Amino acid sequence: MTTGVRRRMGVEERRQQLIAVALELFSHRSPDEVSIDEIAAAAGISRPLVYHYFPGKLSLYEAALRKAADDLAGRFVEPHEGPLGARLLRVMGRFFDFVDEHGPGFSALMRGGPAVLPSGGGTTLTGTPATNALIGSVRQAAYEEIISHLEQPEPPARLELVVRSWVSLAESTALIWLDGRRVPRAELELQLVHDFAALAAVSAAYDEEMAGILRRVLGDEPADGPFGDLLVRLAALAPAG
Amino acid sequence: MTTGVRRRMGVEERRQQLIAVALELFSHRSPDEVSIDEIAAAAGISRPLVYHYFPGKLSLYEAALRKAADDLAGRFVEPHEGPLGARLLRVMGRFFDFVDEHGPGFSALMRGGPAVLPSGGGTTLTGTPATNALIGSVRQAAYEEIISHLEQPEPPARLELVVRSWVSLAESTALIWLDGRRVPRAELELQLVHDFAALAAVSAAYDEEMAGILRRVLGDEPADGPFGDLLVRLAALAPAG
Repeated sequence: MTTGVRRRMGVEERRQQLIAVALELFSHRSPDEVSIDEIAAAAGISRPLVYHYFPGKLSLYEAALRKAADDLAGRFVEPHEGPLGARLLRVMGRFFDFVDEHGPGFSALMRGGPAVLPSGGGTTLTGTPATNALIGSVRQAAYEEIISHLEQPEPPARLELVVRSWVSLAESTALIWLDGRRVPRAELELQLVHDFAALAAVSAAYDEEMAGILRRVLGDEPADGPFGDLLVRLAALAPAG
Repeated sequence: MTTGVRRRMGVEERRQQLIAVALELFSHRSPDEVSIDEIAAAAGISRPLVYHYFPGKLSLYEAALRKAADDLAGRFVEPHEGPLGARLLRVMGRFFDFVDEHGPGFSALMRGGPAVLPSGGGTTLTGTPATNALIGSVRQAAYEEIISHLEQPEPPARLELVVRSWVSLAESTALIWLDGRRVPRAELELQLVHDFAALAAVSAAYDEEMAGILRRVLGDEPADGPFGDLLVRLAALAPAG
């Protein structure tokens, strides 16, 4: 079909290439700092051609963020096999892989990043309805996946609160980690598994229904799993007497 | 100075009145849904006069959010007296007072709310650099206040992470609570105090420096305070044997 030396890409193939190039650039710098010119140069095409595939900067950026959001939601998917603590620890490993790979992009997106004011002529990427909806959909996917592992088809309000607030805790822990990486990520992955148990335990300490759920979950855990020794270690911290 | 029947307000007085009116409206609906016309009507002045005191919608909204942010940061200020758990519980009471009073405004701001796209001609209020900076300054104020109570002038990275991630947990717990208010707020206020101890304990379970800090903090707590019985209750949840 083409007489050119370089093979001409199909429309969808070119769109996917531009999305991949954008995500690669967002892994090093905040999306707000990356121009269409840079994306065009990195893709080896002209700026006007980028606009042939995406009508505006926002549409390309949103497509890239949608792909990243799908990727992130996918990292929470875990087979329903084996002890729960070990499952959650594997999920945390994949979550931190994602955070590691997409550092500045993840950070800008979740922080509602350093968006440019409309009056400044820049593009407001973060905090738009589309990006907020993407963040919300990832949080919802993570929430539903965890609830499915807990086998609570109709989770009580306190369990929903524990799971949703833990998802938020995982986000903020990852964001704080990205700012200097002063604690080894493996430690934080394990810590977040323990935090889940700890938040559930706090809720269970004052609510019988939550206590029943927690006992059932912990009852299936092996003593040498990531949930196994936590409460014993916590008990050791209690003031003597 | 004026011959009118109604006393004419000074510039700063009028600005403060408009800010108060805006905040009152934001306590019932998201800022993005509140128009300048409504604010003018509620203040009993004309729309053009609003623009005399604030050059644009964004400047009035940012002034209102700045006042709310100052108010919120102030709720974290607590005398350095008495047991830490009781101090934090009082702070949580004032925090939930704020959340209760400013429901939709707080929610829209922290969620990066349902902002209107620039191309739609609307005002993007949330996710702007100014509002993001405000949110960041409140988080920083809360963080610094807590660190000062822990008497750790040079907090280790793990303590910084625990405190900052707990601040984020308090935010998300409040946001989830606002969505239906299905758990009594007093329970969540106490739960967040316990969550703080639990997150610190998880970090301390695997780090000697954090364990030392936690033992010192818990050592000063009365047995009947909000920190006092938590670890004992948690220990009771541990699987027997």
